[in-house]
Amino acid sequence: MLHWLRHYRRAMLPGDISAGVVVAMMMIPQGMAYALVAGLPPVVGIYASIVPPVLYALFGTSSTQSVGPMAIISLMTASTLAPLAAAGSALYATLAAQLALLSGLVLLACGLLRIGFMANFFSRPVMSGFTIGSSVVIALGQLPALLGASRAGAWLPDVHLPSAILGGGALLLLLAARSWLASLLRHLGFSPTVADIGAKLAPMAVVLGATALVPALGLEALGVRTTGNVPAGLPFLHLAASHDHWQALLQPALLTGFMVFLISMSGAQTLALKRAEKLHSNYELIGLGAANVGSALTGGFPVTGSISRSAVNFAAGANTQLASLITASLLALALCVPTGWLALLPLPALAATIIVAVLGMFDTSTLRTAWRYDRADALALIATAAGVLALGVEAGVVVGVALSMGALIWRASRPHIAVLGRIPGTEHFRNVDRYTADTAPGLLLLRVDAGLFFGNVEAVNERIEDEIAARPCTRHLVLVLSAVNAIDTSALFALGELNAMLRTRGIGLHLSEVKGPVMDRLKQSELLAALNGRLFLSTAMAWDALSAEEAHGSR
Amino acid sequence: MLHWLRHYRRAMLPGDISAGVVVAMMMIPQGMAYALVAGLPPVVGIYASIVPPVLYALFGTSSTQSVGPMAIISLMTASTLAPLAAAGSALYATLAAQLALLSGLVLLACGLLRIGFMANFFSRPVMSGFTIGSSVVIALGQLPALLGASRAGAWLPDVHLPSAILGGGALLLLLAARSWLASLLRHLGFSPTVADIGAKLAPMAVVLGATALVPALGLEALGVRTTGNVPAGLPFLHLAASHDHWQALLQPALLTGFMVFLISMSGAQTLALKRAEKLHSNYELIGLGAANVGSALTGGFPVTGSISRSAVNFAAGANTQLASLITASLLALALCVPTGWLALLPLPALAATIIVAVLGMFDTSTLRTAWRYDRADALALIATAAGVLALGVEAGVVVGVALSMGALIWRASRPHIAVLGRIPGTEHFRNVDRYTADTAPGLLLLRVDAGLFFGNVEAVNERIEDEIAARPCTRHLVLVLSAVNAIDTSALFALGELNAMLRTRGIGLHLSEVKGPVMDRLKQSELLAALNGRLFLSTAMAWDALSAEEAHGSR
Repeated sequence: MLHWLRHYRRAMLPGDISAGVVVAMMMIPQGMAYALVAGLPPVVGIYASIVPPVLYALFGTSSTQSVGPMAIISLMTASTLAPLAAAGSALYATLAAQLALLSGLVLLACGLLRIGFMANFFSRPVMSGFTIGSSVVIALGQLPALLGASRAGAWLPDVHLPSAILGGGALLLLLAARSWLASLLRHLGFSPTVADIGAKLAPMAVVLGATALVPALGLEALGVRTTGNVPAGLPFLHLAASHDHWQALLQPALLTGFMVFLISMSGAQTLALKRAEKLHSNYELIGLGAANVGSALTGGFPVTGSISRSAVNFAAGANTQLASLITASLLALALCVPTGWLALLPLPALAATIIVAVLGMFDTSTLRTAWRYDRADALALIATAAGVLALGVEAGVVVGVALSMGALIWRASRPHIAVLGRIPGTEHFRNVDRYTADTAPGLLLLRVDAGLFFGNVEAVNERIEDEIAARPCTRHLVLVLSAVNAIDTSALFALGELNAMLRTRGIGLHLSEVKGPVMDRLKQSELLAALNGRLFLSTAMAWDALSAEEAHGSR
Repeated sequence: MLHWLRHYRRAMLPGDISAGVVVAMMMIPQGMAYALVAGLPPVVGIYASIVPPVLYALFGTSSTQSVGPMAIISLMTASTLAPLAAAGSALYATLAAQLALLSGLVLLACGLLRIGFMANFFSRPVMSGFTIGSSVVIALGQLPALLGASRAGAWLPDVHLPSAILGGGALLLLLAARSWLASLLRHLGFSPTVADIGAKLAPMAVVLGATALVPALGLEALGVRTTGNVPAGLPFLHLAASHDHWQALLQPALLTGFMVFLISMSGAQTLALKRAEKLHSNYELIGLGAANVGSALTGGFPVTGSISRSAVNFAAGANTQLASLITASLLALALCVPTGWLALLPLPALAATIIVAVLGMFDTSTLRTAWRYDRADALALIATAAGVLALGVEAGVVVGVALSMGALIWRASRPHIAVLGRIPGTEHFRNVDRYTADTAPGLLLLRVDAGLFFGNVEAVNERIEDEIAARPCTRHLVLVLSAVNAIDTSALFALGELNAMLRTRGIGLHLSEVKGPVMDRLKQSELLAALNGRLFLSTAMAWDALSAEEAHGSR
């Protein structure tokens, strides 16, 4: 922790300052927008951007990760809280903080249990499908706000023209900025990096412009809704909690914490690779857990590392988490100056920034690559996206887990197993399907190229059964364990049963090339004593001893 | 399907008949008892033992599996339905059938999707923990019935003495039979097999004896509760369904279907190994699915293959599913003769048979073996049992899934990776940690001994980063893919990112010994075109070309 502080060099400062300023200007509209997605007052999004990144900087290991509100996690928050409280109510805000607290505690617990390997959970296609589905759900959810329609009603006939014009105009401006602003700036002579970063600040500019229009054109009198009163001052430390809802929030907190971790890691890993730095997933869990607990204690809601914001942070020159500390300080400062102008921020313009932001998440390149490369992965992507759209974002997580899980089990259940033969004139044994190798009558040598565990013992048993059935005169089965790094308890039992079965059929079960650590374990079990055969140090020794025995026996 | 019928030989008939009769005598008390565990009238347990085994015989692949009511699945049924309807109500029975229907449809869908590899899901310790926890829950649940206490009240002061004496007596008799009857029969000159089977019929004898005592001693007048009116005649075909509860039953049906499959497979696999026969897990899914749909259509509840009953079936000589058809016919016949005597069956005696049956499931041998052999597996067992006891049987399944899953991901996230060197004077390349092998300056050869996929790409990346950090003058990284049977879409992206990262650091990325099917896939991608290095047929070729290049470059 704070590893970066001990190794801080002066040369890192300019990059950190520029990144800190740029991300702060990106964070103000984004934080408010994502608070709206979560069904919370916009100022809560700024609260949740102050303490969480500071705590992440203390415990996390990514130097460029920007922790704060994030679209998908906000959507999960809204979807969790909608059945429990009315959006905008005090209970709703309390429950949002409580969800952040529970998610944070889940993450901390996972970090302390050191189960950060969970980060390798979703396949990239499943993550992409989840993101695509969520982006569509979020964009559709913002259409009423964009058009000034009341949430509850049928929104199309209910469009409020001034709101729709403002929202539509902001949307067009942002889309234009997204497509052309970077190249325009480059043509004007800015460096590509500066041009790209400038384009990322378009939302701030559009939001400021739209806010200026509200008093100028009297839009409030026309019925354009604004964010309304934004309390000045820093969020105060308090834990708002409702005893009635702990249980209802427990399962959603597990899902939310899980996605907080997966989303943050998938972004951080890409950036870490670019900087050739190493993430420690267990510290990441603790950093994200602390960030969410911090968010809860300052009246916020669940937060995570945002891929898009972290990429801007990185591009703007962030070298260390000092950049995020600068961002947090600027946001805290923004709350200490008069915030009256924030009250005039028109909701249709904020909806437009959300829609354009999530359009950036609607990325079909993974789908296109997977479709050409591995159709099953492409179908998993589509199924996850469809799951989010049809069943909601929580069910989408479950669908994604089930599909990734299925892929894992399927893969584990197909270990590579080779029948070995002896390369003539040598002591080398190779796969008879790939090499010209001798076999000995009555002797079957099988090499399993995977650790033996519950996920593949059945497949190993079936393959043994098949190979023996294909060689009815088999008298000795030698399992060559040169590639077996571990044998778990399930596989130990399976070996014991295999041994008993082969014994009744008059077939010996022998083990060769058992690795040291595996042998140490096996000595703790009863398998070796019961073994209906022998242990051989090398496969060549097994071959010599058993083929001699066979020759002797048949003579 | 019906493979066994086409290959039926006359010599198989005696075994099938004796097994059919024995299992029928075991099934009557067991079916009624497990219906009580599920909160249903006892006769429903007999209904659920008629059509399901017939449908399983049509579609399933185990020759000795006995499909019908089973303790754990009955517990899951009760736990699912308790919040939805009052036990004993018509709605409750309707929902039990509906749960069987949905579970059956889930199983059929899984079978048609050919995802039978799911059977390799629970590790044996997790399954053992689940069984132990469930057996305790079931036994505790039967104590009130054993002692004649009313379910709702505090049962200890509420004990009904005549019931408690009858129940306690039955319990002692059954425990004595369990411990000594088999050896007693063997001493009386019966063969070990006959003695063992005789001991298994003790529950039937005790239940018959207790039933005879009811009118003899006027126990009903004393307040001993009996099963009451048992309607004669076969169950009629009908689908009782409640539209209101489809949704509430959907998630429990997924869990129930999953456990039906896991429980049935774990028993069937043990028996299949003994008979050297092969199960087809996809047909098993279809057989169990059809059995549950059949149970639903005849007013039953979820059923599965019972390990203990199938073992008796096997021991009593069953050669084919004809044995189960005989059992089903005998049970149908039993419902066609006057069933008045069944009404007198005292519930305390039935509770005693349940308690003794689930004591047989309380098997700590797996725990003891795991404790010595692999402490982590032992802890997973204990955690699963504790999960069932503390959180209930459904949560126990989820805990078991999470633990098995965690083990899978953990294992997948630790692929074996070797740095290779050349064995002097040969073209063989081996792990430098295990062999005396030459390395070349600037050249790093890494062999990954696992397919590359989302579960291990991060680990591979990290290892590459570490190895390069340990050899700062590395100019060429050769990934030796001789053991890589597949590269999924996630790993394809990761390789692309690795390639881009190495390019910026001036390190070439080369691939050697790419297998044919893997290469065919890679040709569909953009990786090969973008590769910052070359493809080599053999590692020796890579070594020669790249070390010559290095020597040339440094000269």
